Amino acid sequence: MDAYRAIVTKRDRREYARQAVAEDVLRRILQAGRMAGSSSNSQPLRFIVLRDDAQKQKLAPAGPGTGPLVRAPLAIVICLEKGRRDFDVGRAAQNMMLAAWNEGVFSCPIGLREDAITRSVLEIPENYAAAIGIAFGYPSGEPSSSRFGTPRLPMEELVHYERW
Amino acid sequence: MDAYRAIVTKRDRREYARQAVAEDVLRRILQAGRMAGSSSNSQPLRFIVLRDDAQKQKLAPAGPGTGPLVRAPLAIVICLEKGRRDFDVGRAAQNMMLAAWNEGVFSCPIGLREDAITRSVLEIPENYAAAIGIAFGYPSGEPSSSRFGTPRLPMEELVHYERW
Repeated sequence: MDAYRAIVTKRDRREYARQAVAEDVLRRILQAGRMAGSSSNSQPLRFIVLRDDAQKQKLAPAGPGTGPLVRAPLAIVICLEKGRRDFDVGRAAQNMMLAAWNEGVFSCPIGLREDAITRSVLEIPENYAAAIGIAFGYPSGEPSSSRFGTPRLPMEELVHYERW
Repeated sequence: MDAYRAIVTKRDRREYARQAVAEDVLRRILQAGRMAGSSSNSQPLRFIVLRDDAQKQKLAPAGPGTGPLVRAPLAIVICLEKGRRDFDVGRAAQNMMLAAWNEGVFSCPIGLREDAITRSVLEIPENYAAAIGIAFGYPSGEPSSSRFGTPRLPMEELVHYERW
């Protein structure tokens, strides 16, 4: 798919089929995250790939909206080095989600607020923390979540020229 | 360009030709940023487009590495609503930079640490703050900055399975 078309059509989706995400697609998702730029090329991220249902289930209490992450056939948790910017997490996450979308794989970022839980379940070392989870899966055919297709701000409200 | 190819080949570049970025390319960059997902569709971002050299020059003291932003023919400052996540800034910035790359336009995120300066120069309201600047421009033909092509971490070091 053309890059611009992938970018502007990508929607976050929370419902997925049970079908496993193909290995070569996972490899491209990881490579997309790996190639994202970072501040001064500090490369402050690490990725934890989860496909084991029992392991994903242990993350259920890590945030208020973890259901889709637990149910998705593939979850990736992005860990961020302490003192580094969440901005770089967003860059890598977007790369991963666009690479997935380009292959017909839906995705959605899932907040993981409970540091004690993610740290213990995922055995994250002291100098890193879980910054975000991303759920991935093929479309389920179920009706979309209510937020799908929510309109965006009009350009005139979003964009200013030279000053606000 | 295919989306995956755009994602994995994109490099941050800090040197640009003086040539203005075409209007239709700017429109697609802005639309790419506009369509980025955000937490609960909160749409916490606003974009300020800068092409006026005098206005860009006023941002020079806003950070230690603002030179490329001042010299670039096009700069976009992303403003973030207070209390919202820098993660969403990264998602939109990556969308914009990939849309640019897809059209042969180089880019690089530039930190803007000095809130008092960005707020005053760009007339940013109290409940928002400048989160990042992005410099955009066509390739200059000059030698690349030293960080161009810096190798990424090997996959084995970057990626863990089920737990760290």
